[in-house]
Amino acid sequence: MPLSSIEHKALASLDEQGLIKALRDLVRIPSATGQEAAAQNWLAQQMRHFGLDVDLWDIDVAELQRHPQFPGMEVDRSKDRAVGLVATWRREAGAASGRRLVFNGHIDVVPEGDRASWQYEPWGADLVDGRIYGRGACDMKGGLMAALFAIKAIKDSSVPIDGSLMVQSVIGEEDGGIGTFASLLRGHRGNAAIVCEPTRLNLIPAQAGALTFTVRVPGKSAHACVRLEGVSAIEKYLDIHRTLIQLERERNSEVEHPLLGKLPLPYPLSIGRVQAGNWSSSVPEELIFEGRIGVAMGEASDAVRRQFERTLLNLAEEDPWLRDHPQEIKWSGGQFESGEIPLHHPLVKLCQQCMVDLTSHEPVLQGAPYGSDLRLLVNFGGIPAVLFGPGDVRVAHMPDEHTESSQVILAARAYILAALRFL
Amino acid sequence: MPLSSIEHKALASLDEQGLIKALRDLVRIPSATGQEAAAQNWLAQQMRHFGLDVDLWDIDVAELQRHPQFPGMEVDRSKDRAVGLVATWRREAGAASGRRLVFNGHIDVVPEGDRASWQYEPWGADLVDGRIYGRGACDMKGGLMAALFAIKAIKDSSVPIDGSLMVQSVIGEEDGGIGTFASLLRGHRGNAAIVCEPTRLNLIPAQAGALTFTVRVPGKSAHACVRLEGVSAIEKYLDIHRTLIQLERERNSEVEHPLLGKLPLPYPLSIGRVQAGNWSSSVPEELIFEGRIGVAMGEASDAVRRQFERTLLNLAEEDPWLRDHPQEIKWSGGQFESGEIPLHHPLVKLCQQCMVDLTSHEPVLQGAPYGSDLRLLVNFGGIPAVLFGPGDVRVAHMPDEHTESSQVILAARAYILAALRFL
Repeated sequence: MPLSSIEHKALASLDEQGLIKALRDLVRIPSATGQEAAAQNWLAQQMRHFGLDVDLWDIDVAELQRHPQFPGMEVDRSKDRAVGLVATWRREAGAASGRRLVFNGHIDVVPEGDRASWQYEPWGADLVDGRIYGRGACDMKGGLMAALFAIKAIKDSSVPIDGSLMVQSVIGEEDGGIGTFASLLRGHRGNAAIVCEPTRLNLIPAQAGALTFTVRVPGKSAHACVRLEGVSAIEKYLDIHRTLIQLERERNSEVEHPLLGKLPLPYPLSIGRVQAGNWSSSVPEELIFEGRIGVAMGEASDAVRRQFERTLLNLAEEDPWLRDHPQEIKWSGGQFESGEIPLHHPLVKLCQQCMVDLTSHEPVLQGAPYGSDLRLLVNFGGIPAVLFGPGDVRVAHMPDEHTESSQVILAARAYILAALRFL
Repeated sequence: MPLSSIEHKALASLDEQGLIKALRDLVRIPSATGQEAAAQNWLAQQMRHFGLDVDLWDIDVAELQRHPQFPGMEVDRSKDRAVGLVATWRREAGAASGRRLVFNGHIDVVPEGDRASWQYEPWGADLVDGRIYGRGACDMKGGLMAALFAIKAIKDSSVPIDGSLMVQSVIGEEDGGIGTFASLLRGHRGNAAIVCEPTRLNLIPAQAGALTFTVRVPGKSAHACVRLEGVSAIEKYLDIHRTLIQLERERNSEVEHPLLGKLPLPYPLSIGRVQAGNWSSSVPEELIFEGRIGVAMGEASDAVRRQFERTLLNLAEEDPWLRDHPQEIKWSGGQFESGEIPLHHPLVKLCQQCMVDLTSHEPVLQGAPYGSDLRLLVNFGGIPAVLFGPGDVRVAHMPDEHTESSQVILAARAYILAALRFL
């Protein structure tokens, strides 16, 4: 449908250059998960400068951890403040009426990894051929900044709106979702939420979950020269790995979900870390492995945990050593439930229509095999939410992560339309 | 055969209490491989005090490393001096005639490991129920000190002897044999050598070798949620591990050596360390594993290295990923050749007879599945050598390592007899 004059006016108020500059400034502030305070403080200043109502607070991590639905955490948060940041805006300050649309974006990024693999500076925010390079440029400072500038554009345009807009700049998404969890507990809610994750501005109303585990496999030390007198934790792991691959196969054999079922492997079980032994000539008496198991749509996380544990227990029943020396399973780190809203939810249709009106192309509906804050908003917050943002998730977490500035601007335009039409 | 009056006189001169006290003093000086300087300096003082001719020198590690037959090294030697120590004694100072018997003992010990696994102090040298507890008590400060006190007894007894006696207190045996290598290069040689390793005073004239390797297995990183787009270095390792176990089986299928062939697994191939990945939710792009492969009697170390490399190469030929992304194999750390002297070598018979005369029991002839400095003395130094010392190798490298003081004293007595009869 054609854009209204109000929509045209708001779109025209978007400060595109300011958006790209602010995004590059934000990318230059390292904010690996657990070290987001500097970036949050800087962003809070921007928000105040734009005239938004800013709530910047210290998150009591210890208190959150006692919550029965705590979403998990992997990093050490003893070294840096855990800072919550939410900005709200409404046309008439103080008026509490009307609906609210929430934009949710995480400010934490994964570490830059091996610097030598980068052609660009991980914290340099180089703008080359229309692409902004840097850790977090795609995942997801681009989407976060697009949302902030969308609100600013609506505000600056002076178009009349009812209700309010909110942007949640959250920490700790990568390792569980502590920031969104804290924001919801603090009462920062709305009638719907757009999670500005990189989807290439396609729409993801369904995301699988992912549960992080750490397993200790016991062995028995011996000098390598008499290795038969020991029990190699590595050899025990070989059987465990095979068993887990089999479990993954079973869990992915008949996935009927209309979006997740299209993926080659909707619910991966992946081992990310293995560490065993401390000397080349000793039989290793311990192996630790860490990984994640996908949670299917509609499946309870607890059921997945029990199945995983039972699978390892069944294996141990057939292995005299493991039967007498149990593996220790911890559900460490991020515990991402799966989450979804109906494919034809009004929020999905709204965002789709905004993209059609802006680009004449219909965005694709997709399912995500990864966890995100969507499930916290939907399951814990009771707020319909969809992933919808600029950038390609394929370059997230990678060297030379980047986003296209044109897509960031298009995202801001889509958010402006979505906000005006939602309220 | 009955002991001679000279032998009786020398045996009577053994300072048994002094031996046990000195051994406990030495155990109390931590001397993990790479940090032996304090123990060497202390022992040199003892040797001088006993009136021996002491050579205490700084080993030029960098120069040794350039030697084509460098025996390998694993520890970092940049933090502590590498000290050589050899004491020699002859009845008439300056006389160069006669034969020489060498006692060789390493003063370096493996780290104490997990302190919580110890009931006794690792560096406490507690004497309980006739056992001395502590790291190195068995492997092999007991044998080293027994040798020193055997020479002292002969000296103190004033019995006439021709030729000379030498004790080499060597560093870095556990990680390759740099100390014995340096001693031989410095010209400290003899006509035969007793390596005072813990054999329960049995005789080991043949020792398998052991070559330490480090292999890097490349993978391809991807987020766990799209793990099929990556290549897990862990999964590549599973195949490699299986292949190596198969190689071990082949290499141990028909061992005909009269001593090594009696062992359940003469030439173990053991993986001691595995490390892969740095995040639970990433497909690991690299796995490093370290281990050791046994070298058979009469087998060239180079042939073993080539076979190991060829085995991994053959596996890679059948795996498209590994074919294009080669594993990197390093022969890191200790490179212990195998080594032996004939079972009926006069040195073996001599030591056997000494034990029979002292205990009325014939010691057993054994083969060792582990590397030792024997092979350096035999192969590199051209000096017939046998492992023959107090203590049980089964408690070496373990928590609550210990040795029986009575066996240390018996070893010193056997060394006295062997020395008198050899010269």
